Amino acid sequence: MTEFILPTHANALGSVFGGQVMAWIDLCAAICAQRHTGRIVTTAAIDELSFDRPMKIGQVAQLTARVTAAFRTSLEVRVHVDGEDATTGERWACVSAFVTFVAVDAELRPAPVPPLVIASDEDRELAAAAATRRAHRLERRRRALG
Amino acid sequence: MTEFILPTHANALGSVFGGQVMAWIDLCAAICAQRHTGRIVTTAAIDELSFDRPMKIGQVAQLTARVTAAFRTSLEVRVHVDGEDATTGERWACVSAFVTFVAVDAELRPAPVPPLVIASDEDRELAAAAATRRAHRLERRRRALG
Amino acid sequence: MTEFILPTHANALGSVFGGQVMAWIDLCAAICAQRHTGRIVTTAAIDELSFDRPMKIGQVAQLTARVTAAFRTSLEVRVHVDGEDATTGERWACVSAFVTFVAVDAELRPAPVPPLVIASDEDRELAAAAATRRAHRLERRRRALG
Amino acid sequence: MTEFILPTHANALGSVFGGQVMAWIDLCAAICAQRHTGRIVTTAAIDELSFDRPMKIGQVAQLTARVTAAFRTSLEVRVHVDGEDATTGERWACVSAFVTFVAVDAELRPAPVPPLVIASDEDRELAAAAATRRAHRLERRRRALG
Amino acid sequence: MTEFILPTHANALGSVFGGQVMAWIDLCAAICAQRHTGRIVTTAAIDELSFDRPMKIGQVAQLTARVTAAFRTSLEVRVHVDGEDATTGERWACVSAFVTFVAVDAELRPAPVPPLVIASDEDRELAAAAATRRAHRLERRRRALG
Amino acid sequence: MTEFILPTHANALGSVFGGQVMAWIDLCAAICAQRHTGRIVTTAAIDELSFDRPMKIGQVAQLTARVTAAFRTSLEVRVHVDGEDATTGERWACVSAFVTFVAVDAELRPAPVPPLVIASDEDRELAAAAATRRAHRLERRRRALG
Repeated sequence: MTEFILPTHANALGSVFGGQVMAWIDLCAAICAQRHTGRIVTTAAIDELSFDRPMKIGQVAQLTARVTAAFRTSLEVRVHVDGEDATTGERWACVSAFVTFVAVDAELRPAPVPPLVIASDEDRELAAAAATRRAHRLERRRRALG
Repeated sequence: MTEFILPTHANALGSVFGGQVMAWIDLCAAICAQRHTGRIVTTAAIDELSFDRPMKIGQVAQLTARVTAAFRTSLEVRVHVDGEDATTGERWACVSAFVTFVAVDAELRPAPVPPLVIASDEDRELAAAAATRRAHRLERRRRALG
Repeated sequence: MTEFILPTHANALGSVFGGQVMAWIDLCAAICAQRHTGRIVTTAAIDELSFDRPMKIGQVAQLTARVTAAFRTSLEVRVHVDGEDATTGERWACVSAFVTFVAVDAELRPAPVPPLVIASDEDRELAAAAATRRAHRLERRRRALG
Repeated sequence: MTEFILPTHANALGSVFGGQVMAWIDLCAAICAQRHTGRIVTTAAIDELSFDRPMKIGQVAQLTARVTAAFRTSLEVRVHVDGEDATTGERWACVSAFVTFVAVDAELRPAPVPPLVIASDEDRELAAAAATRRAHRLERRRRALG
Repeated sequence: MTEFILPTHANALGSVFGGQVMAWIDLCAAICAQRHTGRIVTTAAIDELSFDRPMKIGQVAQLTARVTAAFRTSLEVRVHVDGEDATTGERWACVSAFVTFVAVDAELRPAPVPPLVIASDEDRELAAAAATRRAHRLERRRRALG
Repeated sequence: MTEFILPTHANALGSVFGGQVMAWIDLCAAICAQRHTGRIVTTAAIDELSFDRPMKIGQVAQLTARVTAAFRTSLEVRVHVDGEDATTGERWACVSAFVTFVAVDAELRPAPVPPLVIASDEDRELAAAAATRRAHRLERRRRALG
């Protein structure tokens, strides 16, 4: 997913407004999650979103997403956002985040998610880290309700 | 901060689009951070953002923010988003998140943040949890840089 | 209701575009009117909207609304908009307006509005001024039709 | 000025959102005021805005503006908004309003406005009514300042 | 159709963003096509769109449309966009384009379009050029499919 | 470039609004043109834009761009837009267009464009067709001027 940064996306400093980047991350991750699950998905959580370098008006935001873990009815997607100056070819890492979605059926009830093929060591590490984040999330919810 | 949910904010299911809620959270937290620091702030990170219940077109999003911890040149803000049906008075917790900002001076260099008054047990717990999240963030960055 | 002023809200002078402020006033007043009536409301009229001082990109608009008078199936809401520089704490009166709504039922027909409790001299003065504005409005409509 | 009503302009009832119509009125009146004055103008007040009939998605909003009165450094513009169903040719009066602008010079200081040619009885009546609205506005401001 | 150019419409150079002008052209042409056909229309093609001079923030875009040719279930509309500086009265040709629409019935199936009255030499030339563009379009489609 | 179709992008029929697709095409082609030229580019023309099948809310628009011809200070880019239902994997051709840009230097004067490497028969055919379109465009302008 590629976005050209226009004045309508800017904050008061002429950089892209943080909330706009989050909106793009949510959409990019949702497309990735729908392709994996073959289902409508709804956003459940965002973890470890970090803004490392800004992007300016006239530059380009490049978003890439991959599924990191599939659970019973939910899945986690990692998104990387790179900034690009299309006139010089310069490119730099800007933002990364993990977005968790729940897959739903036509009545919007949680629905099963296909398993993720784990083929490499990197796959395994990403899935293990996702499982840890999920355990923390469930623990926080338990404490919030309890 | 209060937002009336219009069709322009909706996803394909008629609920408010997740990215729109994130944009509101970023703005609400930024105002809170500017009031505490007396400075321009730039978004550095989002942690533990969770969507618990949806909001529909015609309902109202109520956002409240408080500073949870002040560090040397950064600070963390917690945002709660409640849904409200203004015609019935019903209100329900929808989304919460922790947003970290860096305070900057007129040349956009990191600038000192005033300390936070810690007065109650709740204040202390929030600040301790914020410090843990910050340690994890710094640890992740250290590993990412190698 | 609180809005952070972004470049997307600006006019050609870098101040917030008047039409954007009006849109915020309409939404803020509608939430207030729905809370009082417990019904869906539709905008019927705006009176005495005055822009006294501008707000710039990077500043904050603070809107507050209160019901000034309840009629049979309509009610009037006053909105004040203050500008705020969140980095200095400075705050100044910018815009005020009176918005009249019609309450409607599920078939969008006019529906009764609960009476307003008039407790103080200020309440009484606001209600009297609202009744005068309403009489002028009805008189104008009579002449327009007649 | 002509606007096609899209879902992005709608409220929760599928009609055009009141704040959107106000934004169009402000822009249409501003163009009219700039043509008369040959200057940049800033919105000062809105009076007697009334919504008489709604407009739906897929219909067209037709706005027409004329100067009703020119004062020393300000002027009043009347805007009529008609709804139109472009497939049937049906057209109906929807909204009207009076918008007052201050003309400004390059340093944004109030600047003189050319007089308005008053040629017909209708011109005279509009100008007299505008003068009455202006007197009320000045009286309100005097009282507000105390 | 008249549009006031705001920062939200701008590209990174402070001129109106090309895609925004195209959106206005599409809407202006669609209204014209609906008035001629008395039907809902859907955009089928754009030809010969050329940007000759830019428009800046604070200036006004003036769009005018006319039907150039009516075919069995489609029609072609020409749109001219002029830039205007409303403070000086200066006006200049900016953009022109030909937009083709298909008229549809309530089930969104192609529906007959009323013939166009050809009264002048200019009408005849426009209709002949439209027929040539249509022949090229059909030829391109035949090749693409074949 | 990938876009998730939200209600804010829709026309009155629940399909993506034609003007929105054109805006995406312009941005996608501009990024491609900036990468080839290493310069800021401004949109000069659109040719042969055809809408073949619609896209609905909840579906995904996939845009791909390639340079078809480089001239002295201008270049032509072809954009294909595919619709995608991310839940089924179905994908269909929707829109195609040719966008011509002028490359500009820092003072916004036309600037040289690097030549395009022509390696295959398809490259040659695309460049020849682009040259034909350009000749027609120049011929039309010559006639328009006089």
